[in-house]
Amino acid sequence: MTETFQFKLLAADGNARRGEVVTPRGTIRTPAFMPVGTVGTVKAMYLDQVRDLGADIILGNTYHLMLRPGAERVARLGGLHKFIRWERPILTDSGGFQVMSLSSLRKLNEQGVTFKSHVDGALYHMSPERSIEIQGLLGSDIQMQLDECVALPAEPDEIERAMEMSLRWAERCKVAFGDQPGKAMFGIVQGGDIPRLRERSALALRDLDLKGYAVGGLAVGEPQEVMLGMLDVTCPVLPADKPRYLMGVGTPDDILKSVAHGIDMFDCVMPTRSGRHGLAFTRYGRINLRNARHAEDTRPLDEQSSCPATRDYSRAYLHHLIRSNESLGGMLLSWNNLAYYQELMAGIRKAIEEGRYTDFMAETMEGWQRGDLPPV
Amino acid sequence: MTETFQFKLLAADGNARRGEVVTPRGTIRTPAFMPVGTVGTVKAMYLDQVRDLGADIILGNTYHLMLRPGAERVARLGGLHKFIRWERPILTDSGGFQVMSLSSLRKLNEQGVTFKSHVDGALYHMSPERSIEIQGLLGSDIQMQLDECVALPAEPDEIERAMEMSLRWAERCKVAFGDQPGKAMFGIVQGGDIPRLRERSALALRDLDLKGYAVGGLAVGEPQEVMLGMLDVTCPVLPADKPRYLMGVGTPDDILKSVAHGIDMFDCVMPTRSGRHGLAFTRYGRINLRNARHAEDTRPLDEQSSCPATRDYSRAYLHHLIRSNESLGGMLLSWNNLAYYQELMAGIRKAIEEGRYTDFMAETMEGWQRGDLPPV
Repeated sequence: MTETFQFKLLAADGNARRGEVVTPRGTIRTPAFMPVGTVGTVKAMYLDQVRDLGADIILGNTYHLMLRPGAERVARLGGLHKFIRWERPILTDSGGFQVMSLSSLRKLNEQGVTFKSHVDGALYHMSPERSIEIQGLLGSDIQMQLDECVALPAEPDEIERAMEMSLRWAERCKVAFGDQPGKAMFGIVQGGDIPRLRERSALALRDLDLKGYAVGGLAVGEPQEVMLGMLDVTCPVLPADKPRYLMGVGTPDDILKSVAHGIDMFDCVMPTRSGRHGLAFTRYGRINLRNARHAEDTRPLDEQSSCPATRDYSRAYLHHLIRSNESLGGMLLSWNNLAYYQELMAGIRKAIEEGRYTDFMAETMEGWQRGDLPPV
Repeated sequence: MTETFQFKLLAADGNARRGEVVTPRGTIRTPAFMPVGTVGTVKAMYLDQVRDLGADIILGNTYHLMLRPGAERVARLGGLHKFIRWERPILTDSGGFQVMSLSSLRKLNEQGVTFKSHVDGALYHMSPERSIEIQGLLGSDIQMQLDECVALPAEPDEIERAMEMSLRWAERCKVAFGDQPGKAMFGIVQGGDIPRLRERSALALRDLDLKGYAVGGLAVGEPQEVMLGMLDVTCPVLPADKPRYLMGVGTPDDILKSVAHGIDMFDCVMPTRSGRHGLAFTRYGRINLRNARHAEDTRPLDEQSSCPATRDYSRAYLHHLIRSNESLGGMLLSWNNLAYYQELMAGIRKAIEEGRYTDFMAETMEGWQRGDLPPV
């Protein structure tokens, strides 16, 4: 087993890359989708199931975990991996994004951000150094720099100011992270929807020679073409021998296209959150199980799937569970959705290896567009 | 495989009985605990897990299922077993108890009960015949007569009136059920906390020569001694060669003692409902995982258990999940609790076979009284 964090590029097809992030805790096959384990649990799933579906890595949210159970407590309990029973790699975000979206009373300046916990109202201060310290206490394998993510649309001056400060924070995070051969700290490219700012951010981060790079501040409401356009100016600037992670993305369609633009890693709450709300992702596209058309449909979501949730339970039963607000509904649809996402990633990886990624994209999108089975 | 519903008495120890209810869908080892699958799901559990824990039968609630998805719909979908993916026996209640407790606008008379659905406000009428018809549409293996369950304390006249009407309803249900060799319709002994009424009810039901007998209207707030006293006047009157089911009971302590008074079958939402609220049943008694003493306790609930939820997850993690209101908390504690209940029933059955039920009761209660492990 390796003792250092490495990225290996195994194959490429156009801008799509097939690789491996090798860490002491295991290898992450890329392109990879990371299920989100917000508060130390991938909602409504046993982590054994998550692993069995093919996830090589999961994500933990620093903001949630620092508030409850608290980073120092997790450290005393032996670290996040042991606490939640997941021995493979974990990536943690910096906490910054959720400080902005969930906490109140935020005061942000060059030093960092002061905020009130949404759990108990307690006051916290987070600097770039403290964010890295917290992620270290959690025992995270891939840590993210603290950054400021501006909601779009925003004024160019504001986007630039936040991007420049994020660059200075990246340097401070790099120093705080220091030399940890088995782990990595990723920088985050910012710059909103302005190509020259994205380029400036990517260039400056490249010069910091980090172990990996994320693209942040996208999929925050802008059209998909804008997001892909930003990837087109960003990815070519980033070093080819480092992994690239598009934060918080996204729909299966977003993922399929972003891979073609050079992205290696993804995370999103969509499969689990949508699952709890009755939405199933399948090779027939999205299926809303709340819809009355499923009420007497004895067919499973997809009889050819290897996932029990997808193959063994009737649509009628799933419809009933979702309509009745029963937790088994969310359990089964989260399971189905994470299975579909991992199956999609496996298909993506295979297609890149075989040099037929363009065809794979077309076939996959055709399946979605053909839509669901005709009603019974 | 048998084609008829039978009860076999295998052993007895005092009044405690070890038996088997044999049905075309499988054998129920008694004393048996039936997990409650209210709306067609044992909450927060996969039914595969429920079976793996040793449950031979589960319970479905007629009231909930008739409102959603509806009995006729379940029948069109092939019956409840197929709908929910549980091929073993299912017992359904009559719906009467929950009409009284959950619906509004109830009008009850000799014909039956008219009520408004708590789901959508629609008006329903349920007669004894309709209750049996619904249970038949669901495909229930053990069906219950419609009865009127009076909340205690109540006036003797009122208890007697309801008990007598329940007897007349038992006759109507018997006629409606007719001749179904592989299935059973159980009568329900009523009579509140009045011994002579309980005796009268049991005698009259015995004369109806039903395939099994339930004791209803207990564990509704009265002291445990009152409940056990009612069993003492009821069970001796009931035929020894028919199974006896104590409805809605109860705590592990209630079950342990009721078995000693001659009861064979139990059902209760307690293990699943309490689990979702953070309460664990163990051989050390009840453990409230919300309690701060567990926050940094890396020990599992019980390292000697064979249930993964009990053996593999730290108390600290369970505490965190419950405090964070994460569904995995309810999933794990429901799993633990149903495992403990089934383990208790297995212990009860073995002790009766070995003629040491009194000792088993004493040892089990001693374990509960000794209480939880000392804090770390």
